[in-house]
Formats: sequence, C-alpha cells, structure tokens
Amino acid sequence: MAEKVVIIGSGPAGWTAAIYAARANLNPLVLEGVPKQTPSIQLPGGQLMLTTEVENYPGFPEGITGPEMMEKFKDQAVRFGTRVETLDVVRCDFDSKPFKLTTSDDTVIEAHSVIISTGASANWLGLPNELRLATSGGGVSACAVCDGALPIFRNQPVAVVGGGDTAMEEASYLTKFASKVYIIVRRGEFRASKVMQKRVLSNPKVEVIWHSVVDDVLGMAHLEKLRLKNLQTGAMHDIEVKGLFVAIGHTPNTHFLRETKLGLDPVGYVKLTDGFRTLTNIEGVYAAGDVTDQVYRQAISAAGMGCKAAIDAERWLAEHGID
Amino acid sequence: MAEKVVIIGSGPAGWTAAIYAARANLNPLVLEGVPKQTPSIQLPGGQLMLTTEVENYPGFPEGITGPEMMEKFKDQAVRFGTRVETLDVVRCDFDSKPFKLTTSDDTVIEAHSVIISTGASANWLGLPNELRLATSGGGVSACAVCDGALPIFRNQPVAVVGGGDTAMEEASYLTKFASKVYIIVRRGEFRASKVMQKRVLSNPKVEVIWHSVVDDVLGMAHLEKLRLKNLQTGAMHDIEVKGLFVAIGHTPNTHFLRETKLGLDPVGYVKLTDGFRTLTNIEGVYAAGDVTDQVYRQAISAAGMGCKAAIDAERWLAEHGID
Repeated sequence: MAEKVVIIGSGPAGWTAAIYAARANLNPLVLEGVPKQTPSIQLPGGQLMLTTEVENYPGFPEGITGPEMMEKFKDQAVRFGTRVETLDVVRCDFDSKPFKLTTSDDTVIEAHSVIISTGASANWLGLPNELRLATSGGGVSACAVCDGALPIFRNQPVAVVGGGDTAMEEASYLTKFASKVYIIVRRGEFRASKVMQKRVLSNPKVEVIWHSVVDDVLGMAHLEKLRLKNLQTGAMHDIEVKGLFVAIGHTPNTHFLRETKLGLDPVGYVKLTDGFRTLTNIEGVYAAGDVTDQVYRQAISAAGMGCKAAIDAERWLAEHGID
Repeated sequence: MAEKVVIIGSGPAGWTAAIYAARANLNPLVLEGVPKQTPSIQLPGGQLMLTTEVENYPGFPEGITGPEMMEKFKDQAVRFGTRVETLDVVRCDFDSKPFKLTTSDDTVIEAHSVIISTGASANWLGLPNELRLATSGGGVSACAVCDGALPIFRNQPVAVVGGGDTAMEEASYLTKFASKVYIIVRRGEFRASKVMQKRVLSNPKVEVIWHSVVDDVLGMAHLEKLRLKNLQTGAMHDIEVKGLFVAIGHTPNTHFLRETKLGLDPVGYVKLTDGFRTLTNIEGVYAAGDVTDQVYRQAISAAGMGCKAAIDAERWLAEHGID
C-alpha cells in the first residue's frame, strides 16, 4: 500500500511536518537519514545536532541544547503516530503515481505525497579540531545569527572565514557583540556585493586578512587561536580569537533529486513555486526548511515551513480523495 | 531617540521577532496591545490566550497550554532585553522618517523600522456560553487544525458553523476524527468553491443543516448541545455535539493601518511583496504572523515569520547604517 505522505529528513522542518501530518491522521513515515560524513556532515536531527546551546527557539527561555530539542521534536511526532526509519532516499521517481522512493537499503517505498526536508549542510574547513569545538560549544560555529549572541563571544575577538555575502552578513552581525572581527579570505578580494563589502569594511571593528586560510584551529576546551597561512608568502601567523564562524557556504542535501524533474536552483536548493507556501513544480511534492532556504536557516523558520508543508500535503490529498 | 525596531503585537510572531531582534542587539520595544472585546477579542498573547491545550507546537511533546506558552515566549524575549509596553498603536505615519507611531495613551513613538504582528481575530457567534467553553477547553474552537485531533472529539459528533472555504476545510479535516460533522449554514447554499463543496458533501459523515443559525450553546463544563434556529420557519431544535468549530472568518487587526499607504488586501490583511520574506510595500515595515496569513494560522508558522521579520529588519537597519 502506498504511503499517504513520506517525509524525507529529520530536522526541525521534517519533525514539524510529521507532527502536523500525524495529527491529521495521515500516518506519516519519516525517513530520518543515515549519519554520514561525506559529501557533508549529515545527521538525523540535522544541523542542530552539531550545536550545543540553542537560545533563540521560542518556548525555551532558559535555552536548550540542539540534540535535546530534536529529541523533543521526534518524541512529539512519534507520540502522534509517526513511523520512523533510519534510511536515506537514494533515488526518486516522481513520474509514476504514486511516487516511488528507493531507499538506501534498496527497498522501494510508494508515496502519494512527499515532503522534502533534508536540509543543507554547512561546509566546514575540514580541520581536525574544528568540528570537535563546534559540537562541544567550544567557540566554532557555522551560524552567527544562531550563536553570535552567546556570552562567550561578548567583547572578545572572533574570526569569520569566507568572502561571500553570507560571510559579510555574519561579520556585520558579529560586530554587535565582539570586540574585533577578523575576516579571513583566501583571495585578495571579496565575492560579496559592493554594498555589503562597503558596509562591513567601514566598521572599525573589522580587520580583513587577505590571501589567507586557516591552517589550524588551536584550543582544548575552547578555541584559543587560529593558525593562518598566507597563500602568497607561505608565512604562518597566529591570531587569538574566542570564536570562529565558518561562512564558506552550505550544500543542500538534494543529490538524490538531481535526476528528477523537481525544480532546483543552480546551487541545488529546491525551488518553491510560491514562497509563502511549500509547493514545488511537481504536484504532491513539497519542500520545507533549509533545503529551500538560503536566507534565514533558523530552526523556528524551518519548523514553520514544515507545518505549512504538512497542511499543504493534507489539503492536496483530501482534494484528490486520498484519505 | 527613535527606536531601532518597534514590534506591534504579542502573539507567537511578535515575541519571536522580539527574541531575534533582542539577540541582534536592537533593543526592541514590543507594544503588546491592550485587552479588548470589540471589534473582536484581542488579548496580549493573541489567539493562543483563548486556547487551552496546544499539542502541535514542536518542542512540547506533552503539550502546553496556550497562555503558558505565550508566557515562555515573553520571558525569553524579555530575558534578552526586550522592553514591553501594554499599549495599542492607534495611528501610524509611515511617510516621515523615522516612522511615527501614535499609541493608545497618545504618546508618539519614533521608529526606524516596524514589525507588524497584530494577528487576526477569529469571528465568534457572540453567544453567552461560547467563549467560556472556548477558553476552558470545553469543546468550542475556531481552529480545526489546532484542536480537531484532541481526544475529546474522537468518534464524537461535532458541528462547524459557516459556509465558506474555511468552513469546508474545517469540516473536511474533522471527518478524520469525528463520528459525524454537522455543517450549520445560514443560507440555502455555500459560498465555498464548488470543488470544496463537492468534496465535503460527498463524505458520508457530513450532514448540512441549511437555513439555520446557532441560537444557544448548551453545556456546563463541556459542550453538550447546540440549539439551532431555522431562519425560514423559526423552528428551534437541538443537536447533540461534543465540539463546535466556528468558521465564520477572521478579522485582521489592521484598523490602525487603514489610513497609511501600507498595502492591505480587500479584507485588511497586510500584503507581503515576497511571500517567502516579510517585506511590505514600505521599506522598513515588515509583517509576520496571522496579520498576513489566511492560509495556515498556526503558532509555529507565525513564529517562523516573526524570526524572518526580525532578520529582515536587522539587515535593513545595518544596510542603512542604523545600528
């Protein structure tokens, strides 16, 4: 029997879609994904599994850790009847009706509707200490809006790695809290728009370190120094920082969609046909969360979209008499 | 000194905007609104103040009451430095820069940016018992997606009042849980689209009671009966139901915006220029939550938009050097 709705991905968007779909008696199946390191770090629970303290998800005035929060989301979805399988989807056939999803254990799941909420994974530098400090609250992060306001960064020097618009936004945001914001950029110029550059470079707290990469992330319990390498001279030097914000892009987790007719943008993000809703170019296929969001990337905004996707799917199924 | 950002309204969208704006060091001011009964019921905290158990806000697997949840949202916003005034905005001047907001105590607040999150109030029938049972978990509700899955309605007869698309959607949704769904409609036809009507009327659980209004809502701790009046014959008769879902529309709380150039739709909802974001036709003015949403109206979707509005406002302020 075909599933009424299959939800692919298990971050805030996926679990919220599951809560709403389960309460709408759709008996949803969540394919939460298999943990993996390549091509990017993907874990059931999503990007929040790599964070410690979450202070901006509304409802938790005292804060909550990312993994605890995802546990609560999952519990709530399961409590209302969501079924969960630790599987990836490796291939989708959206031409057949119902749709056919091939999973990582080679089974084929039929589904009348699909919600894609596989997220986007932050790109990391790939240095040994980096992820350890990111996942232990040690001062390494891929999201300034999420973590920049944490007390550990207040009036402390921090560094942003990257040269695009996101790096400029992260740096601009961090100037509100940090005593100094280094921007470490590989080339001798930014890819960011001129307006963004001007805004950031005019801030007296900002110092750009051109032609440089981070060669090592130093610190035990907490980040202490970055070892930088000048790509022109080969020279190394250390800077003392309490925070490292890696802003070298995200990779949307949409490899399994590349051979379908689902509309993706050039980077691979799922395109919505109407930004307010969650419809894609394929009827019955919905997208929610970071997999379709290059602007906000917050747990609460992803969860909001997950809710919308489940309501959109529910109404579509009802319209088509699939109930 | 002009405020960097003023947030008007204090439901999920407003508090979430405040949490994000406060963490972005914008020192936000929330005008939470004065409780009132006319033209519609408006309370600080919004529509959730009229509900008891909230089971679908992600993060609370055991459920939480609406007022408790709004208390947590507010605490979190205040914890990060949000200031709160129990005032309404009665008039806006968006032509001057900074904007000028006249409040219900006749002070004028200057603001570089404004987030409108005043919500939309459900229209009620106006019967004595109705609101008492709505606010005590007694079986009266204005939102089937929110409350329809509650155990008290499972395999029980319920009634929907209204004849528009929303009433059809509520009735369709309720057929998943209820043993029977009465639709009580004033006229001899529905305003809803033919497709929606057909779907609902073809469901064997649905019984339409034409030309009728609810004359009285009967029950002490819990709804027991509706007294219906036939408008053609004047005859009264009672039906036994455990749930009453009032679906006679919402009134967006935008009266104070009517004389501005802010784009509103014919019903009075704030129009977004890009549904994915929260920008309006006036630069520096953002809208989030039910005040701009006729589709979903959920706490989590409103909160998601509140987050987006704060990020949009923060970036706009930074671009304009207001920091």
